[in-house]
This record gives sequence, C-alpha cells and structure tokens, in this order.
Amino acid sequence: MVANPSHDPTTRRNGMSQQSSLGVAVIGTGRMGADHVRRISEVTSGAHVAAVVDVDIDRAEAVAASAGCAAFADAAEALASPGVDAVLIASPGPAHEAALLTAFAHDLPVLCEKPLTPDAASARRVLEAEQRLGHRRVQVGFMRRYDQEYVRLKALLDSGELGRPLMLHNRHRNAAAPPGFTNAMIINDSVAHEMDVTRWLLGQEITAVTVLRPHPSRNAPEGLLDPQFVIFETDGGVLVDVEIHLNARYGYQVQAEAVCENGTARIGDRHDLLVSTAGRWGGTVTPGYIERFEDAYDRQVQAWVDATRRGEVTGPSTWDGYAVAAVCEAGVRAQTEGRRVEVELDERPVLYR
Amino acid sequence: MVANPSHDPTTRRNGMSQQSSLGVAVIGTGRMGADHVRRISEVTSGAHVAAVVDVDIDRAEAVAASAGCAAFADAAEALASPGVDAVLIASPGPAHEAALLTAFAHDLPVLCEKPLTPDAASARRVLEAEQRLGHRRVQVGFMRRYDQEYVRLKALLDSGELGRPLMLHNRHRNAAAPPGFTNAMIINDSVAHEMDVTRWLLGQEITAVTVLRPHPSRNAPEGLLDPQFVIFETDGGVLVDVEIHLNARYGYQVQAEAVCENGTARIGDRHDLLVSTAGRWGGTVTPGYIERFEDAYDRQVQAWVDATRRGEVTGPSTWDGYAVAAVCEAGVRAQTEGRRVEVELDERPVLYR
Amino acid sequence: MVANPSHDPTTRRNGMSQQSSLGVAVIGTGRMGADHVRRISEVTSGAHVAAVVDVDIDRAEAVAASAGCAAFADAAEALASPGVDAVLIASPGPAHEAALLTAFAHDLPVLCEKPLTPDAASARRVLEAEQRLGHRRVQVGFMRRYDQEYVRLKALLDSGELGRPLMLHNRHRNAAAPPGFTNAMIINDSVAHEMDVTRWLLGQEITAVTVLRPHPSRNAPEGLLDPQFVIFETDGGVLVDVEIHLNARYGYQVQAEAVCENGTARIGDRHDLLVSTAGRWGGTVTPGYIERFEDAYDRQVQAWVDATRRGEVTGPSTWDGYAVAAVCEAGVRAQTEGRRVEVELDERPVLYR
Amino acid sequence: MVANPSHDPTTRRNGMSQQSSLGVAVIGTGRMGADHVRRISEVTSGAHVAAVVDVDIDRAEAVAASAGCAAFADAAEALASPGVDAVLIASPGPAHEAALLTAFAHDLPVLCEKPLTPDAASARRVLEAEQRLGHRRVQVGFMRRYDQEYVRLKALLDSGELGRPLMLHNRHRNAAAPPGFTNAMIINDSVAHEMDVTRWLLGQEITAVTVLRPHPSRNAPEGLLDPQFVIFETDGGVLVDVEIHLNARYGYQVQAEAVCENGTARIGDRHDLLVSTAGRWGGTVTPGYIERFEDAYDRQVQAWVDATRRGEVTGPSTWDGYAVAAVCEAGVRAQTEGRRVEVELDERPVLYR
Repeated sequence: MVANPSHDPTTRRNGMSQQSSLGVAVIGTGRMGADHVRRISEVTSGAHVAAVVDVDIDRAEAVAASAGCAAFADAAEALASPGVDAVLIASPGPAHEAALLTAFAHDLPVLCEKPLTPDAASARRVLEAEQRLGHRRVQVGFMRRYDQEYVRLKALLDSGELGRPLMLHNRHRNAAAPPGFTNAMIINDSVAHEMDVTRWLLGQEITAVTVLRPHPSRNAPEGLLDPQFVIFETDGGVLVDVEIHLNARYGYQVQAEAVCENGTARIGDRHDLLVSTAGRWGGTVTPGYIERFEDAYDRQVQAWVDATRRGEVTGPSTWDGYAVAAVCEAGVRAQTEGRRVEVELDERPVLYR
Repeated sequence: MVANPSHDPTTRRNGMSQQSSLGVAVIGTGRMGADHVRRISEVTSGAHVAAVVDVDIDRAEAVAASAGCAAFADAAEALASPGVDAVLIASPGPAHEAALLTAFAHDLPVLCEKPLTPDAASARRVLEAEQRLGHRRVQVGFMRRYDQEYVRLKALLDSGELGRPLMLHNRHRNAAAPPGFTNAMIINDSVAHEMDVTRWLLGQEITAVTVLRPHPSRNAPEGLLDPQFVIFETDGGVLVDVEIHLNARYGYQVQAEAVCENGTARIGDRHDLLVSTAGRWGGTVTPGYIERFEDAYDRQVQAWVDATRRGEVTGPSTWDGYAVAAVCEAGVRAQTEGRRVEVELDERPVLYR
Repeated sequence: MVANPSHDPTTRRNGMSQQSSLGVAVIGTGRMGADHVRRISEVTSGAHVAAVVDVDIDRAEAVAASAGCAAFADAAEALASPGVDAVLIASPGPAHEAALLTAFAHDLPVLCEKPLTPDAASARRVLEAEQRLGHRRVQVGFMRRYDQEYVRLKALLDSGELGRPLMLHNRHRNAAAPPGFTNAMIINDSVAHEMDVTRWLLGQEITAVTVLRPHPSRNAPEGLLDPQFVIFETDGGVLVDVEIHLNARYGYQVQAEAVCENGTARIGDRHDLLVSTAGRWGGTVTPGYIERFEDAYDRQVQAWVDATRRGEVTGPSTWDGYAVAAVCEAGVRAQTEGRRVEVELDERPVLYR
Repeated sequence: MVANPSHDPTTRRNGMSQQSSLGVAVIGTGRMGADHVRRISEVTSGAHVAAVVDVDIDRAEAVAASAGCAAFADAAEALASPGVDAVLIASPGPAHEAALLTAFAHDLPVLCEKPLTPDAASARRVLEAEQRLGHRRVQVGFMRRYDQEYVRLKALLDSGELGRPLMLHNRHRNAAAPPGFTNAMIINDSVAHEMDVTRWLLGQEITAVTVLRPHPSRNAPEGLLDPQFVIFETDGGVLVDVEIHLNARYGYQVQAEAVCENGTARIGDRHDLLVSTAGRWGGTVTPGYIERFEDAYDRQVQAWVDATRRGEVTGPSTWDGYAVAAVCEAGVRAQTEGRRVEVELDERPVLYR
C-alpha cells in the first residue's frame, strides 16, 4: 500500500524527500539475500523491497511473495522497472561485477555484499567503471564498521586519547568451518573482515602479509590448515596480527585489541548475562556471526538507506573493496608460498580520497 | 509520499497488511514525545507519524513540520482524522486518562508512556473502560521489558535452569536527580521501573513494600532523601530489594541479580570497550537512561508497531499499569510512614489473565 | 632443632628479638586447630608450635607428633610449660572463655578464633578480665580483615576518594550448609563475619538488626530457613544488607559493594582464569571458605606472629569480639521475633578506644 | 636465637628434619638480594638467613645487620661457614657461574635468580658441572611458575580438558623501561620469562624465533625499538606470540591466552576491586612486576625451602636455564638480523629427563 516514488534520477541524485520510502531491488535470494529482504521489510525504516532477482526464478518468486513485490530472473530488467530506487547485491561473489555494472548503467545506489568482486583485477574494473560514472554509487558490505563495539573503538582511536596505535591484535573464531571451506577462503572470506577493519580503524593501507600456522587442529576437516596466524604490516608502521580459527568449537568470538602509545583498548569480551551455577560463573558465547553481528547488519542497511535518501554515499567504498581484494591476493600467496608477500596496490583515485 | 491506508477499523481489528505503514498519532511533543516522533520517522519499520498533538500548538506544529504531518491541539480531533491507525501517548501523566479514553472512543491501539495514570484510582477507571471495550488496546511503556539484558535474564528464569527464584537484588543509579525531583517521585518515577520488572521477571504480584534509607547523600538536593532502599515482597515468596540512588554522580547504572535455588544470574555490568590507560583499566559508565535504554525504546516501539500491524496487542498491559500504580501508592505510604505497607490490589479481571 | 626462647614475660612484654621464633600453644586440635598447627609449622615465618592442647588427649598427641611438640589435655598446664610464648585458641566457642582467662593468668598473647565467646555476657566478662590485666592481649580471628580484597576496599574507603559511605551490600553464599546447621547459627556463625566487616570497613557500630527472608530454598535441609536477608543500621547512618545463603549449590561466594557519595566499589568477582569452551566462557567458583580465604588465614596468623614478636597487639580486639556477640544476640532475636531489634552495647572502655 | 643445624651434608642429602630451620647464604645484596633476605627473614617458614655475601662488603654488612647474620665478601668463605645449608644467588648474571660452581664444590642446594648465566656457553658449563656432581642441586628463579594464575592455567592445560594447545598469545607490558635498557635486554631480560613459561606450560622446546616490530613508540628512549612482537615455534607445533612493550605507560600487565582444540583459556585480567566513579568503572593496573609477582616470589622461595628441607630438588632446572639461554641467543640474532632464527639446543642429558 506504500506508493513508490516515480523513478526520477534527479530526485535520487539530489536526495529524496524524507517522506518517501526507498524501493530496493535485492539481487540474489540465497541465505544472505533472503535475510536482507526480511530486514528491509521488517526492520529498516524508510525502505521497502521493490523487486527481487535470482537466476533461480522459483526461489525469487518465493521470496517475492513474502515481500509482496515482483520477481525477476534478470537484473537489468528488474533495475529498469518502476519503483526501484536502489540495489542491494547479495548474489555470489562472481556475479557481483555484472550486477554492479548493470546498476551503474541505471545510475542506481548500491549496497554490495562483500566481497566487492572475487579478485583485484575485477575489482579494479568496477573501480574504473564507477570513476567513469563520475560519482560514488557503491557501499560495500563490510558490516563490522557498523558494530557498536568497533564503532566505539574507532572513536577512541580517532580521539587521540591513547596516542598513536602501534599494534592491533585480532581474534576471529568460528565454531566450525562451513562444509567445503578451503584454505584460500580462510583469507578471502574470513580474514578479509580484519583487512577491512584494520584499514578502517587505522586509516592506513596494508603493505605486506605473512601467514604462519601451528599444527592443524584435529577438529579441522582434512586438508584445512586451521587455525592460522596472519600478520599485516601497514604503511603507517602498525603491526597487525590475526588469529583465524575456523573450528574453535565453542562458538563465534571476535576480539580486537589496539595497543597505542599511551594505553590499550579491547573489544569482544561479551559480558552481558553472568550466570553462576554448577561450580562455574560466566556467560554464553554467541553461536555464530549472525547472532554476533545481527545488530551491525541492521545498522548497516539502515545507514545505507538513510544516506541514500539524503542523496549521499557513505560507508566502505569501491576503493575499500578493491584494496581488500588486493590484500587478499597477497594473503593467499603468502599462505601458499609460506613467505611474506608485499601488497600491490594502485594509486588511490581522486574520487576516493 | 507514503500513502496512508484509509481509516478502516475492521482492518485494524483484523490485522493490517504487512505492506501498509501504520499511521501513528503522537500525543505530547515534549522531550519524550518529540523523541518518539523522531523514532517512528527514522528508526521504526512499518510506521510513520500521521499526526502530532499538543495543547501547546506552536510546539506541536514545529514537531509536525519535521515529521511532515498535521498538528493538532485537540486529541479527539487528531484521532478522528484520516490516516491515524494508532496512538502513542507521551503527554504528562495527569493527561493520560483523558487521552486513553479518547483512544478507546475511536477503538485505536495505544502505546502509553509510563505511568499509565498517576494513581491507582484513575488506573482502575482505565482498566474498567478497556474492559467495557471488550478487548485489549493498550501497551504500557515499560521499556525495560525490551532491553536485551533483561530479556535474556527473563528467558533464563523462565527456562527453569536455575530453579525457583528466591531473591532479586536491584541497583538503579542516576548521575543526578532532575530539578524538582521529590521523594514521591523516587517511588513513582524511578522505582516504578523495578516494580514492573519484578512483576514481569517473576510472573508474581508485589504484596508489600518497605522503604529504608541511610543518611542522605550530600550530593542530594535539600529535602531529597537520596538514596533509598526499597523492599518488595511478592505473592510467590520472593524477596526483592532495590537500591535507588538518584545522585550517584558517576553515571547511570541499572543492575539486577536474581538469586535462585540452583544459581544466580546478573545483568548490568557494562563491559564493552575496555581501556587501560593512566594506571587504570575499565570502561565508561553510560551517562543517562537515554543512552542506556535507547535500544530498548527502539525495540519497544517496533514491537508495538509489529504487533499492531498483525492485529495483536502484546507487551505490558493496562493491568500492569494499574498494578504498578497500586504498588506505587503503597510505596509512597511506606516511605512517608516509615513502615511496611501492604499493597491493595483488585482481583485480576478475566481480560488480563 | 629450633631452640625456643626461655619463657621470659619481660621479653614478651617488650617485644622479642626478630631472631627468636615464637612458641605457640594451640588449644583445640579439631579441623580448625589442626589446620593452624600445619600453618604455623609450614607457612608462618618466625613461629613454631610449642604445645598442643585438647581434652581429647589422643587427638592432641596425634597432632603433636606431626608438629614435633608436646601434647596436653589441660590448657593451664600447657601454658605454664617452658617454650610457650603465645596461645592460639581454636577449641569450640563455649571453651573460649576459660582458655582466655587461663592465657590472661599467664599474661600471654592470644589469637582467639571467632567467636570470642558464644554470647555477649561471657564476652563482657572477657572484656573486663582483659581490662583488669591492664593491656590488650587478644586478637580475635576475624580473618576477613586480612583478605586482600577487603584490605583494598577498606583502603579505598579510608582514602575518602569516594566520599562518605551510604550503603553496603553483601553476599555470603555457601554451597551447602554443614550438617546440623541451625537458624541461630546463620546469624552467629555466618553473618557474624559481615558484622565484623561492617564495623571494620566503616569504623562504625551496628545499632539495629532486621532479618527478612523469602520462602526457603528447596535445597535447604528441613527447618533451615535459608536464604535470609539481614539488614544492619549503623551509628553513622549507613544501611547495610546481607544476603546469607547457605545452600547456594554452586560454590562459595563472598561479595561486598560499598555505595558512597561519589562512587561505588565492589569486591568478590573472582576473575582469574577465564575459559571459553562448550559454548560458555567464564571461570570456576571456589568450592568453600577454606579455598576462598586460605590466604587471609595465612596472613592473619603471620600478622599476629609479627605483631607479637614486636611486642604489639593489633587486629580485631576483644571489644570487636564483644560487639559482634552483642549484634548477634540482637540478630537472633530479630530473626526469631520477626522484627527490627536494637543492639544493646556497653560503652566502649578506654582500653579499646 | 634459632640454633642452626650443624653443617652435615648427609642430613641435607637425605632430607632435613621438619623441625630444623634452613640456613641460607644469600649471594648478592643488591635490590633483588636484599629483598630475598627480607623475604627469608620475615615471610618464609622454615628458613633463616645464615650469611650474606657481596663484593661490596659495606653493603653486605648493612644487610647482615638487619638479618642478624654474618657478612662475607667471598662466597667460598661464606659457603664453608657453619650453619649454611643452602645458597640463594642474587648477584648480577655474569657472577652466577662462579657462584654456582662454588655451591657445587660444597654440594649445597641452590636457588639461582634468572638468568642462570648470561649465555648458552656458560650455561652449558654449569649444566656439565651439575652432571659431574651426579645429582640436581639447582632451582632457577623463573618465578612465574609459582604465580597462581599461571599455575591454574598449567593445571588446565595438563588436564587435557581443552584438548591439544595450538597457539599461545602473550602480553608483557611495563610502564617504563629501566634506564639503560637495550634491545638485547628486551629479549634476555624480558622475553626470557615467556620463553620459560612457554616451555613449562606446553612441555615443549622452542625451535625457532622471529622478531617483528611496528614503528617504535615515542615513549621509548632513543634507540630502544619498543614495542616488539616475538614469535616462537615449538617442537610440538605450537605457535607462540609475545607482545613485549617496555614503555606502555599505564602499568605492568602480563597476560597469556592458550588456544586449544576445544577451547581457550586466558589469565592476566586483574579484576579485584572494581570502582565506579567519575564516569568510569574499572580497576587499577599494578604498577610493576614486584607488585604483580610478589606472591609468586614468596611462593617460589617457600617451595624451594620446603623441597630442600625434604631433601628434594624441584622447580625449573639447570636445563631450563640453559634452554632459555639458547633461545635468547637465537632471539637476539633474530632481532638483529631481522629474520627467523632456529634455536640450537644440545640433546637433553639424562639427569634432566
């Protein structure tokens, strides 16, 4: 019953009235896409799902029915349809480039799930396409930037109260690796979060990656060298370490500790409901990233909707997506070759400074 | 640009389509009302402000301008206007009864800020009016029930894992009492929260109140006997104590500890960002209730909107509002007379069982 | 092989050489006495067990054998024997008065386990006897004063940094009540610790006691009204509450929180080894008071030995023992009669000011 | 007034009577030596200082006066004097080898402060000398093994409850580097503790060392590359990292986290007295290693005295001292040469298996 605004690029470009509801086309209706459809329909203020797209049209139609919108098998067709003001890309990574270029063709604002694209070369092409467009259109789904603990840590670092950062220690633990998880995915899917977080918290680029590891856990599936210990160097001279542990058994735990000249700051102790029983005191560990970062996902989409309705683009940019892809490539080589690998990064274009 | 659904009581009664946006009339545009207008406009999914009401029409119009809706000086007129599907009452407590009765006259769903009304007699009248209506229409704004820490504590108690509750210890500390705060307000405005929380966490009624106190803090304004220590007895035999401390200086702190037969559970340690600097480690204390319970306010309104759109009434009821008013009366007498006072509570009507 | 100093009261009165080892007669060789014999033999510096006394001479001889000293059935005989410089009384409470008077007859320094004596009348007699002696000879075994957490809390309160204390919240939880534990023992044996701690932390006397309680835990033995909630008022206007819970199941937990004008301070969170496993994070709860206060017992005896060798008497005095006995009497009456009972306390003699 | 046992090696070898007091010669009366003299005199049970030795005879005599014992400039002379049952070496590291050989000449039990000797070659000579003696005589002063937090962590790891260890994260922060502290001392004096702790906690040898570092802190003195990040590999395949930070400003902080197959365990959060005031909650950070490890020092000496009186040698051995010296050499080379350096370790002699 919500009347969608007519598809008027001028309106979009100059900011939409606060009163209008943003019509979002969601591309990809797998687990992540379906969750975004639910979020936009039930959680986000000021937006609604205007269309869903999936090459699996049956799946698209099922999701569309729940959202009360149209289903499409073809993204271009969906983005051209009336009532679509913005695009959320949640299809598999290899499909992102095409979806992004289609969105650029319609000059639509995009929230693109991570990774931006699966490798640095394709990410560079998207970067160039957006530059040809002449303005930023993309927010990349690095949702940890919207987690309130990280937000507070960043605010503290930015305040300068603790002086210059020197080191950043990170823990990233999952209960169990998803089936089919590979060593490359440890870098590309998991450590990618710490790459973005490092760059964002410090405002620095990562210049080299080293991957170390102990003997694998017997809880890891055959062939998965889990856990690993990844070290970043930054162009600001900060040393960053990441424990990535996919089969930690006991739950999902993300922690970060910044060591600065005048103090340290730590997030990730979850200390909500403390129970004493049966000889022990303590709390529960969140089972997975959904529970841990649900609030961050909600805030990410709300921030994107709010900025889009104001005619702005905020949050992690295409450049951030490209830079993480470049660090991932160095990381996978460091992992494979057992040595320190320097990151090859293009010069940062003017549009992203 | 959102088209509001026509004002069709049948629709409201039977549940609205998920697609429709709930048009809310906000009565009262003081600090709390204005904050709810902002919330419904910018945070809540599936609702918009359809009208604002204030006897101070200038203030109403200023808020209406920000929300893009109509302003009214008269509640009855506002509730009769098209596009109003539900009512949020945020006027001063003494104005609640009239507003509630007006909402009942239009058979509109209501979210009524606490207190339901200023005393048990008026609360009883509202209770009777709602019973004459024949169905529940009111959710009372006891927002702590939507705080995630309390929600987890209640889930744990309900699970039976810790056995039967025996005691409940509460701490309720503010940095400084608002100007003009009186000893009666300590009970009616502050401890009222613990009254509701006690009843809700335990599923029991409070049967007696005792108020003890140490010598007053020198940080308390002249005449305010702060802090106080309030004790509730319940019909389930649980002993509840509340430290209420209005001028604790260092911030806003709400803690609760349930002592059960097989364990204890505690909430309210805020343990997010841990900083070590200048010889100390620790975190910051939230400055006020807004910061502490902002998320609970957001969730409360969203839950109300969601339930209302489904045609349901959930959350704290008129009965809860009445029962707290009755306990408050006993509490103020206990405070004034320096003795244990039993709570006089009507029998619970069928509608609220 | 340690040569004991000759029994020279002058030496004792004026302080012993740092080089000499203090010969201690331990009266009572039950659990507590045997533990003190072990402590003095193996943990304490500057002291050795010179004699053990027990009416059960077989038990005394078994303990004496382990300590390599003489055994006695009669305290007077033991205290008169050469090599005895000081007395540690660990016999049952009803035997304390006689043992204390015997020690006074020999003018020997005493560490007397709590309670000083079982009631205020007998405690008053000891108080008078020590005054006739003309100097303090007794340290009472309120060992919490030597617990490092309490010591730090007291230092903070004494510093004035947090301003004047207003309230003191205490938790005292045991896993299970010992067999035969009675309601009176809840006051006399358990809450007696909080009585002493309250008086010591605040430097104030307790003027009234109230005992409240919820329905008893089903974990409590038949007839034991456990838990209870005890409230003290002090002559400095501080309000003190004590949750005493004998059958808390999960372990031994002692916590205290001081609420002051400018801040609060809390001890008793035990936060040493944090383990994350099986979906939970946290630590273990100490099983009993021995584990929790072992260090305090060690420090108590060392402090007593050190002071005695310097010719001084420090620590909790006979007055403290008497005052706690008087508060216990009020507490048991409050518990039995279900009402607030004022404490009757003599004027504090000059010797103890 | 304590009669020392006659100097009878047979007695010492077969265990001393529990009744005798161990006469300890303390070599070195600098800060550490004087502190041990105080400890043995006032804290330790069952021991006394029988002699003190220092090439600075004035200093020795001053300390001897406080302890009521004889002073010597020459260690050999002191160790030959009657009443000396055991030796505590607290002289500067370069003097340790000679002192140890002198003690061996008298077949006396030794507690030798860390480092055993300043380099692997001299440590190897001590190792060989002790083997010629045919029995262990030396406990090395790695006092962290007596810290109750580390003890609990080791007990947990040894229990197997968490499965096999995979990684060990360590933090070692000082408020400020002592004057004259060098980069080599960062390895030899500071990280040496984590070397021993790693070997002891895991029961594994360190096989390689890598030293990384961020840009130095501006709080570090000119030339000191502080902080550093040191990585150990072990022969059991565990990856160990150590943040060593000498100028962390805010206090002394030692933390360790073991990552195992089925869980993680962390020590070093100091969570004793929690204070909320002035907008913050939290605790204080211990200012230095003395405060942090005072209890461990006390327990270390007591354990050494107890074992010695029983005729046993326990605790870290000469082999441990040698192994740490060898890892230190690799560490300093890794630090200087900026690369991973493998540790060269002799085969473990039968005596130390």
